[in-house]
Amino acid sequence: MSVTAASGFHAAGVSAGLKSSGRDVALVANTGPLKSAAAVFTTNRVAAAPVLWSRQAVSDGRADAVVLNSGGANACTGPEGFADTHATAEHTAELLGISAQDVLVCSTGLIGERLDMPALREGVSQASAALNSEADAGEYAADAIRTTDSVTKTSTAQGTGFVVGGMAKGAGMLAPGMATMLSVITTDAVIEAADLDAALTEAVRVSFNRADSDGCMSTNDTVIAMASGANPTGAGAAVELGDFQQALNEVCQDLARQLIADAEGAHHEIAITTRNAASEEEAEIAGRAVARSNLFKTAIFGQDPNWGRILSAVGTTTAQFDPTTIDVAVNGVWICRNGGIGEDRSLVDLSGRNVDVTIDLHAGDSTATILTNDLTHDYVHENSAYST
Amino acid sequence: MSVTAASGFHAAGVSAGLKSSGRDVALVANTGPLKSAAAVFTTNRVAAAPVLWSRQAVSDGRADAVVLNSGGANACTGPEGFADTHATAEHTAELLGISAQDVLVCSTGLIGERLDMPALREGVSQASAALNSEADAGEYAADAIRTTDSVTKTSTAQGTGFVVGGMAKGAGMLAPGMATMLSVITTDAVIEAADLDAALTEAVRVSFNRADSDGCMSTNDTVIAMASGANPTGAGAAVELGDFQQALNEVCQDLARQLIADAEGAHHEIAITTRNAASEEEAEIAGRAVARSNLFKTAIFGQDPNWGRILSAVGTTTAQFDPTTIDVAVNGVWICRNGGIGEDRSLVDLSGRNVDVTIDLHAGDSTATILTNDLTHDYVHENSAYST
Repeated sequence: MSVTAASGFHAAGVSAGLKSSGRDVALVANTGPLKSAAAVFTTNRVAAAPVLWSRQAVSDGRADAVVLNSGGANACTGPEGFADTHATAEHTAELLGISAQDVLVCSTGLIGERLDMPALREGVSQASAALNSEADAGEYAADAIRTTDSVTKTSTAQGTGFVVGGMAKGAGMLAPGMATMLSVITTDAVIEAADLDAALTEAVRVSFNRADSDGCMSTNDTVIAMASGANPTGAGAAVELGDFQQALNEVCQDLARQLIADAEGAHHEIAITTRNAASEEEAEIAGRAVARSNLFKTAIFGQDPNWGRILSAVGTTTAQFDPTTIDVAVNGVWICRNGGIGEDRSLVDLSGRNVDVTIDLHAGDSTATILTNDLTHDYVHENSAYST
Repeated sequence: MSVTAASGFHAAGVSAGLKSSGRDVALVANTGPLKSAAAVFTTNRVAAAPVLWSRQAVSDGRADAVVLNSGGANACTGPEGFADTHATAEHTAELLGISAQDVLVCSTGLIGERLDMPALREGVSQASAALNSEADAGEYAADAIRTTDSVTKTSTAQGTGFVVGGMAKGAGMLAPGMATMLSVITTDAVIEAADLDAALTEAVRVSFNRADSDGCMSTNDTVIAMASGANPTGAGAAVELGDFQQALNEVCQDLARQLIADAEGAHHEIAITTRNAASEEEAEIAGRAVARSNLFKTAIFGQDPNWGRILSAVGTTTAQFDPTTIDVAVNGVWICRNGGIGEDRSLVDLSGRNVDVTIDLHAGDSTATILTNDLTHDYVHENSAYST
């Protein structure tokens, strides 16, 4: 169902020839009555033109539409690239009879190349003509933002008096400059922009920001949320924020899982849970250090439950723990006890695709889980053979 | 010449059977008259037993000998492992007629396994019997600390009234738990422990700490410097500190280059120079971010001068720069100008083993160079196939 699961949204996904084949231009329009919007962008200081545009356009808490393209990131393209993004927003606005300031733009694909504007312009025209609220329209939009994604990523959640739906693309371990993560979340809940912004920030923190495939941050990463307030049973009543947060977290976490599951070149999906940390932040810091250790990631690829590499990675962080009391389990087997040799490592089965690492810091009562992948020959192949 | 290049030092390297073959126990003894010593250790909070021992033993600025072994890291081995290190120091002290508190210990090899103490003890006895000041003795010691190093790493520098010599082993991209970097530097200069400590800290900062092969920090990394004051032409006069710093930097930088050059699995040696940074620290931060980007490292393996990945990496740092004025050159070709497309990337030749990346931040006048390697199939193979 994707972005059309919630009432008040029209979508479309068409082929404009920006990619060698398939759909490459998507449009998502909020038909209201509410036009609340919020977004989270990459913190990379080398931000693509569409990020610079959209950050400014959404700052007033309103967005009527989002236009997205694959087949080109429009990053590191200078003032000309920004003008291209501006022109795309203007063209979309004209077609929909709205203000360009209420059109957000997302691009994904190669870095350092101008977009084929005539093709993109034509694609946007086609997409606006194809806009509708059917389930297929949502799927087409999700399909149009794929780069090297092997499947579309969509998710929906039902709350009391509201629906949340979303689509996403990308993950690390994709080809260079294509590692962009894009996501558009829609809801028919009645919620003000400030509340939507707070909810989205929290949802991203516990979902997309904890999916760390290869530690590389894109110039284009963007997550956008729009609320139409059009839920038929909502009766215009403001949504209960706790319910909404839960549903939004569900959708974002489900999409994040789908991104890691589809990370190309990966043979294992790894969930690193750090428990009994002094704070949730420290649990994240410890898990992220392990998720970014190439020695750990290659060991998992080799089906080697190498707890020494896990300890070494945690040891480089500022997270509170005592090296003589830390415990580590891989797929349920506590192979490291009190910072030393624990249960027989040969009991660990790493033949399956899913790997669960549990790190017990014995320093508090906070927990966080970081999702990542193993480092494989295929990763090296895809990211070296790929030529920009 | 290694550690016996300077007067006042005896060394030995013998085979004790800790490794499947070859020398695995080294001994370096300072015969004085001066016994100044200083050391820099891993900042990994999961530190091996020999690091815990040596850190304490050298804290008084004196060391008479260093005993080193390959074939076992004695890390994550608990109180028993520490007792093994203590026993090794005691045995060495007895043989040399010195105090165990003046014996430093270094170990490298597998993490999480006890050392074969009877074999190590016998090896130390053999080494002490073989101690001499010949050039060969220095080479044997350098050979005995090798793990998967394909060649020994030694270097010497001549100053006015003093000689500096050293040996090193290891680098990132070695097998897990074997990524340890060990180095012993000797000098016959007349220098007090406090001055030696300051000089070593600075030398390590601009050498070993700027060799970042795969961003993984070992539990055992140790760099030790010892001064005998025995230079025949030195006439007991205190060394000129500026001269000494220069010679020490030379030796450490030469050894660091040799470590990167021998990093297994690497096809390219990459020097990332960040210039016109606001500070030397910021130049380091920017270069290190690039050196740790798997997308950049795989691109170089694929001979793809992918400047977008370089910008993305720098963009994740706090280093001052303007994304619209940053320039990047690869092997002398400025393929990124003002944050956008520069000279023709096809002019970049990456067929050779050496790669020079220059990043101009236009934010100040500081420069730093980080040494690293590319990320290759061989790296993944060695670090996944290897089984602890």
